[in-house]
Amino acid sequence: MGGPLRGIRVLDATGVIVGPTATLLLAEQGADVIKVEPPEGDLMRRLGGRAPAGAAGLSPKFLHFNRNKRSIVLDLKTEAGKDVMRRLAGTADVFISNMRAKALASLGLDAASMAALNPRLIHCTISGFASGGPYDGAPAYDTIIQGLSGVSACFQQQTGEPRFAPFVLTDHIVGIIAAQAICAALVGRGADGPGQAIEVPMFENAAAFVLSEHLGQRTFGPGGAFGDPRIMTPDARPLATLDGYICVSANTDAQARGFFDAIGRPELKEDPRFRSVAARLENVADYFRLRAEAMAARTTAEWLPLLRRHDVPAMPCHTLDSLLDDPQLRGSGTLVEEDARLNEEDAMLGLRHANRYSRSGSAPPRLAPRLDEHAEEILRELGYDAAQRAGLRQDAGVLS
Amino acid sequence: MGGPLRGIRVLDATGVIVGPTATLLLAEQGADVIKVEPPEGDLMRRLGGRAPAGAAGLSPKFLHFNRNKRSIVLDLKTEAGKDVMRRLAGTADVFISNMRAKALASLGLDAASMAALNPRLIHCTISGFASGGPYDGAPAYDTIIQGLSGVSACFQQQTGEPRFAPFVLTDHIVGIIAAQAICAALVGRGADGPGQAIEVPMFENAAAFVLSEHLGQRTFGPGGAFGDPRIMTPDARPLATLDGYICVSANTDAQARGFFDAIGRPELKEDPRFRSVAARLENVADYFRLRAEAMAARTTAEWLPLLRRHDVPAMPCHTLDSLLDDPQLRGSGTLVEEDARLNEEDAMLGLRHANRYSRSGSAPPRLAPRLDEHAEEILRELGYDAAQRAGLRQDAGVLS
Repeated sequence: MGGPLRGIRVLDATGVIVGPTATLLLAEQGADVIKVEPPEGDLMRRLGGRAPAGAAGLSPKFLHFNRNKRSIVLDLKTEAGKDVMRRLAGTADVFISNMRAKALASLGLDAASMAALNPRLIHCTISGFASGGPYDGAPAYDTIIQGLSGVSACFQQQTGEPRFAPFVLTDHIVGIIAAQAICAALVGRGADGPGQAIEVPMFENAAAFVLSEHLGQRTFGPGGAFGDPRIMTPDARPLATLDGYICVSANTDAQARGFFDAIGRPELKEDPRFRSVAARLENVADYFRLRAEAMAARTTAEWLPLLRRHDVPAMPCHTLDSLLDDPQLRGSGTLVEEDARLNEEDAMLGLRHANRYSRSGSAPPRLAPRLDEHAEEILRELGYDAAQRAGLRQDAGVLS
Repeated sequence: MGGPLRGIRVLDATGVIVGPTATLLLAEQGADVIKVEPPEGDLMRRLGGRAPAGAAGLSPKFLHFNRNKRSIVLDLKTEAGKDVMRRLAGTADVFISNMRAKALASLGLDAASMAALNPRLIHCTISGFASGGPYDGAPAYDTIIQGLSGVSACFQQQTGEPRFAPFVLTDHIVGIIAAQAICAALVGRGADGPGQAIEVPMFENAAAFVLSEHLGQRTFGPGGAFGDPRIMTPDARPLATLDGYICVSANTDAQARGFFDAIGRPELKEDPRFRSVAARLENVADYFRLRAEAMAARTTAEWLPLLRRHDVPAMPCHTLDSLLDDPQLRGSGTLVEEDARLNEEDAMLGLRHANRYSRSGSAPPRLAPRLDEHAEEILRELGYDAAQRAGLRQDAGVLS
C-alpha cells in the first residue's frame, strides 16, 4: 500500500496552480513531493483566500492543491540555497518547474545542468508556449491562455459573447497533463534507463483540447462549420424544475420514448421530428425546448423517480451547497471532515484522491504543509548535521 | 525515439470520449493501442459529425480522438470474439473500458478474470460513480456529471444561471486523469511486479476538480462563502476593443502601474483603490470595469504593442477562425495540414501531441483507423494462421 508512486521522489519548484496540480496527483499516488518554496512562500498561500486564525499561509486554495507534500524554503539566489537544491536533485526522480528557460539556466536548474548531476532525472518544464515559436517566453496566465486557445471563443459560439470558464481551467487541465507526461517518462525510463527533459506548453495543450472537440467540419476545409452543434446550442443546459434544476440525457431512441412517456406526451413518440437520432439532431432546438417546458411542471424530487422508472438518465443539478451534502460524494470518501484541525475554532472540509488502486492504494492523507515545515527532516535526510542545518538557516534562507 | 511508452500495449474497449481521450495520450506517447470495436463501431464514428465522402465512420471528432490507434472488430457476444479478446489480454500491459461492472463480468473482462490470464495487467475501469456508493451503476453522461459535480453551479455563481461548459468537459478531463492513473500504475508495477485494478470515477473526479478551486472559505465551516471572487465576478472576461477582444492580466503592482501608463491614466497609480494587490482585490469590480472601458478605445493590434511596451501581459482573444491562423500554434506543429488524404477532394487539418520529450520523442503521427482496419495484422501477430483468420471473419464478427 502507500500508492503506486511510492518510492518516487519529486522535487517541486512550482507555484500557484498549474504545477501544484501536477504534483498533487503525484503526491496522492504516494510520491515524496518536496515543495521548494522561496522565502515568501508559494503565492497561492496568500492569493488563495483568507487563511484561518493561527494558520498563516494556509489559504483554502493552497490547502486543496498541496495535500501530501513536504515544504522547505530555499533562497535560490544564495549559493547555500543552490547547494541544497543540487543535493536534492541528486536524490530525486523528477524535477518540475514553471520557470522560464532563462531563469532556470541562471539558477543552474536547466535540463542539461541537472542531467549532469543526475542522469536518471525526469526534468519537466511547464511553459506558456512551446519553445522556439514566436510567443516563446511571453508571460502566460490562465485567462490569457483561455482567450488565446479558443476556450473563450467557444463561449462566444454558444452565447454570442466570449467568456472565461469559471475555473482556472487551462492551468488545472495542463497540470493534469503534466503529471501524465511525467509518469509516461518514468515508465519509459524503466529500472535503469536514463531520464529526459519534458516540455509541457500551456497554450498548445489548451488549443488541442479545444480543437479536438470543435474543429468539426472545418477539419475538411475552410467551408466547414466549427463545433459540435449538440454542445453549442444555447438550449443545451440544466432544466429548471418547480424548485431547482435537473439534468436529463435522453439521446437514444429508447430514452427519448421513455422521456415522452414520463412527461405524459406519448403521442410525441410518433412525431416525425423526434422519431430517430437523426430526426432529433435535425430538430434539436425543438427537442430541447420541449424538454425545458416539460420539466417546469414538477419539482426535482418528483421528476427523478418518474424519469428513472422510464429508464431516462437524470440527476439533480447541484448548487455548491447541495453538492456538499451529496451522499455519493460523502460516501465515497472524496469529500471528508478532516480529523486534523488548523486551530481550536474551525473544523475543516478536505478532499481526497478520487481514484482507487486495488493493490497499491493511495497515499495516506496528510494536510498541506506550513511554509518550511519539513526543512529539518529533509536536511537531515540529505546528511546535513546539526551545525550545518543551523548554518543553513542563515545562508540558504531556511526558516525553521 | 517513438515515444516514452514505446513497448507498452493497451487493449482499449472504450468508446465515445472519456476512454478515447485516455488512450489518445497513451497512443501519442508510443503505446500500441488496440481499439476493440463492436461490429457497429465506436458510436463517435457517426455521432462526431459528418464524415467526408469515401471515409465512412471517420467523423471529425472520431478522427481527433483516435489518432495513432489500431482497430479490430470483435463481437464479444460470440465465443470466438471472446477467445480473441482473451489472447489479446495475455499480450497486453493495460486493459481499459468504461463498461459497468455487470457487463464486464458477463463478458469475462472483470479484473479478477483478466488477472488470471495475465497477472501483470493494469485493469482500468472508468466508472460514472465510485463503486459501492448510492449512485453505483447509474448511467453517467457528461452533461449529467457537469450538473451533478458543481460545474454548472459555478456558472450559476458567476452569471445567475446554471449552464454547461461548451465542452464535453468532464469526459475530457477524466480521460486525462485516467491516462495519468494508468501510467502511475505502470510505474508502480515496475519491471517485474504484478498489475492491479484501477477505478476512475467521473463524478468524484469532477467534483474534486470543482471543489479544489471553489470550496473557498466554506472549507472552514458553513458560514464561509464558496468560490474565488476574482474568477466568479462577471467582470472577469475578455475585453472588447474597437475590432475584437483582448485578454489582459495586470495583477502585480508593476503590471497595474504599467497598465495605467499604457491607457494614459498615470494618475490612477496613486488611487487608493488600486495601489496594492489587496486594494485591487477589495475593489475588483471597479478595477475590472475601468479596464473594460479603457480597452474599447483602440483596436487589438494597437493595444498589443502598447501594453507589451509597459510589460503588461496581453494577448488577443482568438475566435476559432483566427486561432487556426495563430503563428505559434502552426509554428509549434500542434495544428498541421495532414499529408494523408481521406479522399481526392478534401484536404485535412490534424492535431498533434503538444508535449515534447527530449530523448524518446513522441509516436510518429498516424491517422485514426477505419473500422477493423488492422484486424488482419493483429490476428497474425497473435499467431492465427490464414485459415483461422478467415474463420474468425464469420465467427468473431471480424469484418476485414
